[in-house]
Amino acid sequence: MLYIKNFSILGGDKRQIALMKSLVKDGIKIFAAGFDNIAIDEKIIKTNFDEAIKKSEYILLPLPATRDFLSLNAPFCDEKILLKYNFPKKLFDKKVFCGVSQNLRTLSPEWKKVDLIDYSSREEFTIRNSVPAAEGAVALAMQKYEGTIFSSKCLVAGFGKLGRALSHLLFGMGAKVTVSARKLKDLAWIESLNYKAILTKNIKHHSNFDIIFNTIPYMIFDAYTLAKSAKRSILIDLASAPGGVDFDAAKTLGIKAILALSLPGKCAPKTAGLIIKSTIYEIIEEINRRKKSETN
Amino acid sequence: MLYIKNFSILGGDKRQIALMKSLVKDGIKIFAAGFDNIAIDEKIIKTNFDEAIKKSEYILLPLPATRDFLSLNAPFCDEKILLKYNFPKKLFDKKVFCGVSQNLRTLSPEWKKVDLIDYSSREEFTIRNSVPAAEGAVALAMQKYEGTIFSSKCLVAGFGKLGRALSHLLFGMGAKVTVSARKLKDLAWIESLNYKAILTKNIKHHSNFDIIFNTIPYMIFDAYTLAKSAKRSILIDLASAPGGVDFDAAKTLGIKAILALSLPGKCAPKTAGLIIKSTIYEIIEEINRRKKSETN
Amino acid sequence: MLYIKNFSILGGDKRQIALMKSLVKDGIKIFAAGFDNIAIDEKIIKTNFDEAIKKSEYILLPLPATRDFLSLNAPFCDEKILLKYNFPKKLFDKKVFCGVSQNLRTLSPEWKKVDLIDYSSREEFTIRNSVPAAEGAVALAMQKYEGTIFSSKCLVAGFGKLGRALSHLLFGMGAKVTVSARKLKDLAWIESLNYKAILTKNIKHHSNFDIIFNTIPYMIFDAYTLAKSAKRSILIDLASAPGGVDFDAAKTLGIKAILALSLPGKCAPKTAGLIIKSTIYEIIEEINRRKKSETN
Amino acid sequence: MLYIKNFSILGGDKRQIALMKSLVKDGIKIFAAGFDNIAIDEKIIKTNFDEAIKKSEYILLPLPATRDFLSLNAPFCDEKILLKYNFPKKLFDKKVFCGVSQNLRTLSPEWKKVDLIDYSSREEFTIRNSVPAAEGAVALAMQKYEGTIFSSKCLVAGFGKLGRALSHLLFGMGAKVTVSARKLKDLAWIESLNYKAILTKNIKHHSNFDIIFNTIPYMIFDAYTLAKSAKRSILIDLASAPGGVDFDAAKTLGIKAILALSLPGKCAPKTAGLIIKSTIYEIIEEINRRKKSETN
Repeated sequence: MLYIKNFSILGGDKRQIALMKSLVKDGIKIFAAGFDNIAIDEKIIKTNFDEAIKKSEYILLPLPATRDFLSLNAPFCDEKILLKYNFPKKLFDKKVFCGVSQNLRTLSPEWKKVDLIDYSSREEFTIRNSVPAAEGAVALAMQKYEGTIFSSKCLVAGFGKLGRALSHLLFGMGAKVTVSARKLKDLAWIESLNYKAILTKNIKHHSNFDIIFNTIPYMIFDAYTLAKSAKRSILIDLASAPGGVDFDAAKTLGIKAILALSLPGKCAPKTAGLIIKSTIYEIIEEINRRKKSETN
Repeated sequence: MLYIKNFSILGGDKRQIALMKSLVKDGIKIFAAGFDNIAIDEKIIKTNFDEAIKKSEYILLPLPATRDFLSLNAPFCDEKILLKYNFPKKLFDKKVFCGVSQNLRTLSPEWKKVDLIDYSSREEFTIRNSVPAAEGAVALAMQKYEGTIFSSKCLVAGFGKLGRALSHLLFGMGAKVTVSARKLKDLAWIESLNYKAILTKNIKHHSNFDIIFNTIPYMIFDAYTLAKSAKRSILIDLASAPGGVDFDAAKTLGIKAILALSLPGKCAPKTAGLIIKSTIYEIIEEINRRKKSETN
Repeated sequence: MLYIKNFSILGGDKRQIALMKSLVKDGIKIFAAGFDNIAIDEKIIKTNFDEAIKKSEYILLPLPATRDFLSLNAPFCDEKILLKYNFPKKLFDKKVFCGVSQNLRTLSPEWKKVDLIDYSSREEFTIRNSVPAAEGAVALAMQKYEGTIFSSKCLVAGFGKLGRALSHLLFGMGAKVTVSARKLKDLAWIESLNYKAILTKNIKHHSNFDIIFNTIPYMIFDAYTLAKSAKRSILIDLASAPGGVDFDAAKTLGIKAILALSLPGKCAPKTAGLIIKSTIYEIIEEINRRKKSETN
Repeated sequence: MLYIKNFSILGGDKRQIALMKSLVKDGIKIFAAGFDNIAIDEKIIKTNFDEAIKKSEYILLPLPATRDFLSLNAPFCDEKILLKYNFPKKLFDKKVFCGVSQNLRTLSPEWKKVDLIDYSSREEFTIRNSVPAAEGAVALAMQKYEGTIFSSKCLVAGFGKLGRALSHLLFGMGAKVTVSARKLKDLAWIESLNYKAILTKNIKHHSNFDIIFNTIPYMIFDAYTLAKSAKRSILIDLASAPGGVDFDAAKTLGIKAILALSLPGKCAPKTAGLIIKSTIYEIIEEINRRKKSETN
């Protein structure tokens, strides 16, 4: 049991809209600010930011909370909501769920006094999010590649969360999947799933891939590796900054290389919103459990 | 062994370009007409139509050979090549491979004297083509649906070639797959593949699908069925004319319904081109076998 | 709605026991004869044959109804129930469901006057039964083969009902699956499912299989093909008489060849019993529908 | 490159026989002791223990090296080879690969001076071995359960190496798979693979499983949990000592519970032997790399 009666949602995109709709279905009263120019479920109470903050103990900020390190990430809001000085003060004494909290903490010292709970840093969040991210990557590959995913030769560089989800999906679609990793134990996992396993440092000794997906966040596809392995491939870089592809070299070599980030929110906002919800629920349950055991 | 030395390709789209590239790799000399404004593999000999026809015993016409029932289907050609009267006469004594041959035969009586071999009517062609068609349908669904295919509730209406390929793909991607069919034996097949099976005539008693794919070429999704089963669904009609969806009713009901045809050529021209190639090879092998046994 | 109140089960093995248990759960009263020396669900009414026949309009005979062409197939019965002359007469005016009805019809002319409904000849029955048959075949292969099914090289000869179920299962377990068929369209199906396709007549040109499953009921694995293709293989013949393997030649060549028949009943009697039930229900529904439309 | 010319194999079972056969194929000379009463590949040189030890720098002991904490694990050997005092002295200055080395080290102090390399403790070994272990578990379940794995309700308790391999295999065979784990992140993984996820501590709140596989090596299935969750199930305990099932309680409750250990060697000795080979090769490559970098 969650024992939550209401929740205030400040800003966000289609993920928050899906999230609010689902919270309402669970019987939770929702106050929403920052959704001026979009229609949302009529059971959600649209209001202004001050009112919304006042109405609930639980506040939800977007993912990420800010993109420009200045104002709230609220694409459906008519005004810019600045996040420095005054704004965080209003959140003292609230439980504030947010994505990428370090972006806020660097904004102004007041944020350090806010009880920020970063749902995007939870491991189960990242694991769940790797499913929509993998689908987004495959959707992109389907647009760019002129053959079918079925029977295409795919390389997934990296066997972390996204690498696992992606190779699983590609295999399920009938692709011929090669996965790279650094550790022997990961190679053993890869083989036990019926993919071909290669060492990441040996990627340059393999070629003939139709599509290459990079999930490793450091320079793997430098000019040399690109020239050796990716000459005839579509290359999709899914790794967060600084990324793993030398895009200049790719251009020079005539390789179609695409940087694809934030796929869950773009490709499957509904699923991405529900994943935020599940994560928040789990956090609240943990808080409740802790409270309960402290009381006893 | 095919014993083919050369092949002339008259018109066509990206499928023919992929096909020609692959034929060249197999050591066959290619004469291509109708690719004026697009770069093609340099080993392919670009020429004019008359010259191309003269050069080879084997002629390939596009799929379909004509779209406007007047001129050759040749989107990369600078001029319109009319298909009546004179054109077919040039093809007497040639082996002419083409898609949808009945379109030609209705054009002018001369076509009846041409040795037309319709690769698109071969069953193995349609079976193979159902893989890129299914992928195209899923790519479309990914664009339109705001959640992931993974764990989405999908209905595939019809368990013919496309229905089979589509349900297989959706299941491989982790969707919850329901498939409809008319015959008990098909319901048994559907269940043995771990999908949920329903009778097509009972679709109207089921709802809550996120995505509905229709593959049945007669009116299944009439106003009543739409209202009962598709109110919250994305609906993708993949059935050839006359189609299986009342689009007017869908519009009135506010249902997102999309007609999606000719997907293989649009979404995976390379694969679609190779499928044409395989089919032609099989036809030629059959011809050679027949010749051989007649000689003996 | 079935509108069946009771059912009499005469003889049979573990499949009938599972079937009776499930019928009872559906609220149907069951009279059972021929289960003397085995414990069965206490809600089932054990009785003698004459009594059982008298009690219900619906009679169920085993699969097959007779194995020795003389007496009822009733391994749990203390006496031999002879099927000639007198026995069929008791069944006049009953609806008699049975397996392999032709075995009965050849026994004595009285059987021709019995309303025999052969559930085992229905196509949906065979399709459903191919799942437990495939599992039984794989269970056998696991016992005989010293490696894992995962990554083993398997050949499935024949792409009928059992061939389909078997290749699907093997692929799902991570085997490298080759399937043979005669028709081009089946080869296209096989490839579209990501298996390797070969022509049945070309099996002899392939070798190196770890396990070969034959599903074709005529001589495919003659001495020559065995010598060429099966020297290092486990060979499991699943085809009904006359079978597809020259077992003498296999012995001479030192090939482990196993004839494996009636697998569903042996390996998964519970599932096999439920499949009989589903089939009988469908038949009764059809009868009811027909009656209803005749009345109107 | 391995630069190994020869290898001596002392004792072992069918896994070692498969391993030796494969080493010989790789061009390595093999001296084998302890295979008196079984036919092995004729290219393997059978000899006595002293001779075998003398012949190669690389020695391989079985998995485990000893079962009785006294003599070598050598089921095909005519005599008992005692492992104390004298035996280890002969191995000084050799590279000795063995399984479960701690069993040897407790035997006599001389073993501490032997350069023992434990292949069975390597993580990639355990990961690879989980595939034959999972198949062995499923083969057992197929024997004991009267239905098909397809569509059966299976619980896998624990999501470690074996739990992963097992749930993957069951899902691939069409079972309805529930997996338990303790950590939220593992529940997220489980759901992202399309299985049902439950907390291990909540197993007792679920029931109706056809087959339960335990992989957790501490008491999960105590009398209470058995009574609540396993009344109608086949229960297979795969966890190493002390195991996770109260077998006495299971007996009292009339639950079919089976302890199943050492499955890879029993069910798929060939695969298990090749896994030992791959692991040894990787270890030798590491040694060579280290030597090389020390030389430089």
